[in-house]
Amino acid sequence: MLAGRMMDFPLTLTHFLERARTFFGRNEIVSRLPDKTLVRSTYADFHRRTGKLANALSRLGVGQGDRVATLSWNHQRHLEVYLGAPAMGAVVHTLNLRLHPNELGYIANHAEDKVVVVDRSLLPLFRKFADQVRSVRHVIVIPDLPGDTKTSAEIDYEELIAPEKDEFAWPTLDERSAAMICYTSGTTGNPKGVVYSHRSTVLHSLVSCMADTIGVREGDTVLPVVPMFHAAAWGLPYSAIAAGSRIVFPGPHLDPQSLLDLMAAEKVTLAAGVPTIWLGILQLLDQHPGKWDLSTVRSMVIGGSAAPPSLIDGFKARHDLDVTHAWGMTETNPLGTLARVKNGLSGSDDATKLGCKASQGYAVPFVEQRHVGEDGAVLPWDGETMGELEVRGPWVASSYFGAEGADRFTEDGWFKTGDVVTIDHEGYLRITDRSKDVIKSGGEWISSVALENALMSHPAVLEAAVFAARHPKWTERPLAAIVLKEGKTATKEELSAHIEAKFAKFWLPDDYVFMAQIPRTSTGKFLKTKLRELHGDHLEKQGASD
Amino acid sequence: MLAGRMMDFPLTLTHFLERARTFFGRNEIVSRLPDKTLVRSTYADFHRRTGKLANALSRLGVGQGDRVATLSWNHQRHLEVYLGAPAMGAVVHTLNLRLHPNELGYIANHAEDKVVVVDRSLLPLFRKFADQVRSVRHVIVIPDLPGDTKTSAEIDYEELIAPEKDEFAWPTLDERSAAMICYTSGTTGNPKGVVYSHRSTVLHSLVSCMADTIGVREGDTVLPVVPMFHAAAWGLPYSAIAAGSRIVFPGPHLDPQSLLDLMAAEKVTLAAGVPTIWLGILQLLDQHPGKWDLSTVRSMVIGGSAAPPSLIDGFKARHDLDVTHAWGMTETNPLGTLARVKNGLSGSDDATKLGCKASQGYAVPFVEQRHVGEDGAVLPWDGETMGELEVRGPWVASSYFGAEGADRFTEDGWFKTGDVVTIDHEGYLRITDRSKDVIKSGGEWISSVALENALMSHPAVLEAAVFAARHPKWTERPLAAIVLKEGKTATKEELSAHIEAKFAKFWLPDDYVFMAQIPRTSTGKFLKTKLRELHGDHLEKQGASD
Repeated sequence: MLAGRMMDFPLTLTHFLERARTFFGRNEIVSRLPDKTLVRSTYADFHRRTGKLANALSRLGVGQGDRVATLSWNHQRHLEVYLGAPAMGAVVHTLNLRLHPNELGYIANHAEDKVVVVDRSLLPLFRKFADQVRSVRHVIVIPDLPGDTKTSAEIDYEELIAPEKDEFAWPTLDERSAAMICYTSGTTGNPKGVVYSHRSTVLHSLVSCMADTIGVREGDTVLPVVPMFHAAAWGLPYSAIAAGSRIVFPGPHLDPQSLLDLMAAEKVTLAAGVPTIWLGILQLLDQHPGKWDLSTVRSMVIGGSAAPPSLIDGFKARHDLDVTHAWGMTETNPLGTLARVKNGLSGSDDATKLGCKASQGYAVPFVEQRHVGEDGAVLPWDGETMGELEVRGPWVASSYFGAEGADRFTEDGWFKTGDVVTIDHEGYLRITDRSKDVIKSGGEWISSVALENALMSHPAVLEAAVFAARHPKWTERPLAAIVLKEGKTATKEELSAHIEAKFAKFWLPDDYVFMAQIPRTSTGKFLKTKLRELHGDHLEKQGASD
Repeated sequence: MLAGRMMDFPLTLTHFLERARTFFGRNEIVSRLPDKTLVRSTYADFHRRTGKLANALSRLGVGQGDRVATLSWNHQRHLEVYLGAPAMGAVVHTLNLRLHPNELGYIANHAEDKVVVVDRSLLPLFRKFADQVRSVRHVIVIPDLPGDTKTSAEIDYEELIAPEKDEFAWPTLDERSAAMICYTSGTTGNPKGVVYSHRSTVLHSLVSCMADTIGVREGDTVLPVVPMFHAAAWGLPYSAIAAGSRIVFPGPHLDPQSLLDLMAAEKVTLAAGVPTIWLGILQLLDQHPGKWDLSTVRSMVIGGSAAPPSLIDGFKARHDLDVTHAWGMTETNPLGTLARVKNGLSGSDDATKLGCKASQGYAVPFVEQRHVGEDGAVLPWDGETMGELEVRGPWVASSYFGAEGADRFTEDGWFKTGDVVTIDHEGYLRITDRSKDVIKSGGEWISSVALENALMSHPAVLEAAVFAARHPKWTERPLAAIVLKEGKTATKEELSAHIEAKFAKFWLPDDYVFMAQIPRTSTGKFLKTKLRELHGDHLEKQGASD
């Protein structure tokens, strides 16, 4: 080959950190504390404090490749670790505070965390698993609550960095070196660590700033509702810094009222979170239309699990708010696909456009998508054939930390997502299920997500989860778990009537179970294993026979 | 180090080519031929034809690293070579049709071009240097004119690709392999070859699509007025394909009337070209306000040399057209900096904002900038101190093809641009001169560009070039070459009076020379060596003494 003659300039997060100071020093970072007070800072201050932190960590003995764990809500000090640790050559490891302490202990041990940075408000949780973690040398406590509850062995974050110099001599790093470790919170098996590189995170950030993806820009005020312990808050802290955006961190207050108050008061333009968050927000907006001035909001990114079309349409139709529906996983850094209405379809009827916006979209630049059958054969993009989604690209995991999960990677270099999808001829993909939740009735696949979306468009239904119940004749049949909206009622017959025109008869749920709430994973996804555990014998008990 | 565990997915142009077909097959590519007819095609068709071309080139013996030269205007077949050659592992080499045939011969020999693809309309030019080029094995003629003027040794492009298969098995390439060679058309010394890699071109394209840079998007109709033989038409063909934008190619018709007709008829949203082009267009718009409907135009990118503020302001004030002023060089792929008004400055007065928009801007993500004194010391960002601009980044050249020009690269990894600039505390840089054109009067530097901008804001002045004339006492003094607008007059005294309030007295030109046109380089820049050759002794002849 003839080699290009361009500089071997590494794609590392250090560039974003320095760029933020150089060009955007005045831009603001706002953090909401547990007591709801707002702390206002700037990129210049953030840069200084990040330099101090790196000097302090260095003094504590943190070196290249060492893991610095965080057990924190979304706020500026968390961001300082997000940039400071990777830029000094260490690796930030975000611990998911919604996990069981035993899981957290397992994960911190598995990652061999050397330092843990923990919010004072989360110390009680940390202490439940601290003893299990053998590798930790230092515990640094972020004083997000007043008072001093730390032990003498713990270090106060502010006291630690105060005496340090602002400037740190950031080393030149290999772009393929690790920047962050994030564990998947799978519902089966042990959690598995995904190791993002500087390169993957940088490329992910650049693509997130493209006009046709999320389009993060300096003029944005970004509100990452999605926690920084979930797949790097979808990379938003990094793309915001790359663009110089104003950032507003919600802290621990993720209830609809608190979020709406913050969005309105801080004139947020871009917010991002999982469907559960937005379902709650839509419900509150519907109850108090016009109460909050959300005119600055240009986009609300929804991902993490499939959002029902009624949610996307509801925001637009009733509140003129635009949703950007995206798909990704911890293993994809996480942005994989994004539901943008293509230019050639912008003249279509509203239903077609909603169909695009409510799909999981098509792959963003440098992600490639395909779906395959149970035999591994690549399937046609006909909008009907269901198969497991596989993706590849420079920000897709090639393996997990340690030896786990090798069966998730194909021999020809694709990652098996575990999501079952259809892909239409335009490339729009639609999740029909998680592969482990697929309902197989008499050999035919039935999409639980399609049924759930249809059920959630019923005015009385808050949430619907469709799952496989055992059946003596058909092996499995769909059963629907329903949560009704407060004060609303609906019968099985009404729900069945509401959806029967949309599906083949054999797709319709055999029965409905009304619940106060649907069990969820720590990331807010429906926990269908639990539903099957609770109600898997429902049809057998009814004596079903056909 | 701890390595990331992400896929080693190469950043190659092949991804863009395949993505364009996969998601944007219906999108249009329009090419204007020499006879002004418009040829309409689609990305799907473009992809098919590019596959055919690769099969044909492969059959002709073109292998990895081989150079495929083009001598072509901007049109779709040129684009086919732009993508097809790199994606098959060969290297596209764009020959600048404005150069002297001897220079072209030198360049084609130096690059060791194996195949030359040439427009039939440019065959007469090609034949002037064809004999000098020893490496060429095949000449492929693009039939952009009717008739058949090729010799039996030459191959017709359409006949060549017609029998080939649509699909080519694109190889997996190293992202650091060469994709394109482009020669700088320096005014001194031999032309030097810059070798873009796939990686550099891909990263440049992603950054060009960022919301806060050029923001190339699918909804754009992109008109690259800048020739594809100038620094890859600023990468626009690649970023347009990355985004799936509609593309309109102007062919050889680059006069203001033809361009305005095309912009209005094809509803262009984004056009890009050098200041000379836009000066002509502004003049014609001023003569016929409202004649063309340019309401679809969202941005006109101006680069290649410094655009006068009066041009940028004129478009906005008189025609409500937005200019994006950018800086780059062949050696920077080429986008280096871009003049965006930062959010924190958007509330400033109009003069401040125009000062930002008319500057060369600040570095785009992953480009780093500094300026240095004659001793190599890094200078302060005070908006006043002049020094040579140096840049670095993953799409900045690290060396030239062959051994030439090693003195342009610093030991600590920066490229010396040869542009003399100031940088203000916000990071906005302003070109004051080319280093070789700097006017040094009694040891003090005088900015010719600042004087030119001031002179061009006079209503009678079409163009002004300020250059160094020899002076017995001060060594050099500024002399202004002036081209007046048709039918307008201005005296030396009037011009001097127009600018004297804006500069220190010793900056003002000692004299004015009125000319019919200012000599230019092949890329449209003022050729100040020629001005010095013609008028360098002007003051000596006048008997100047102080």
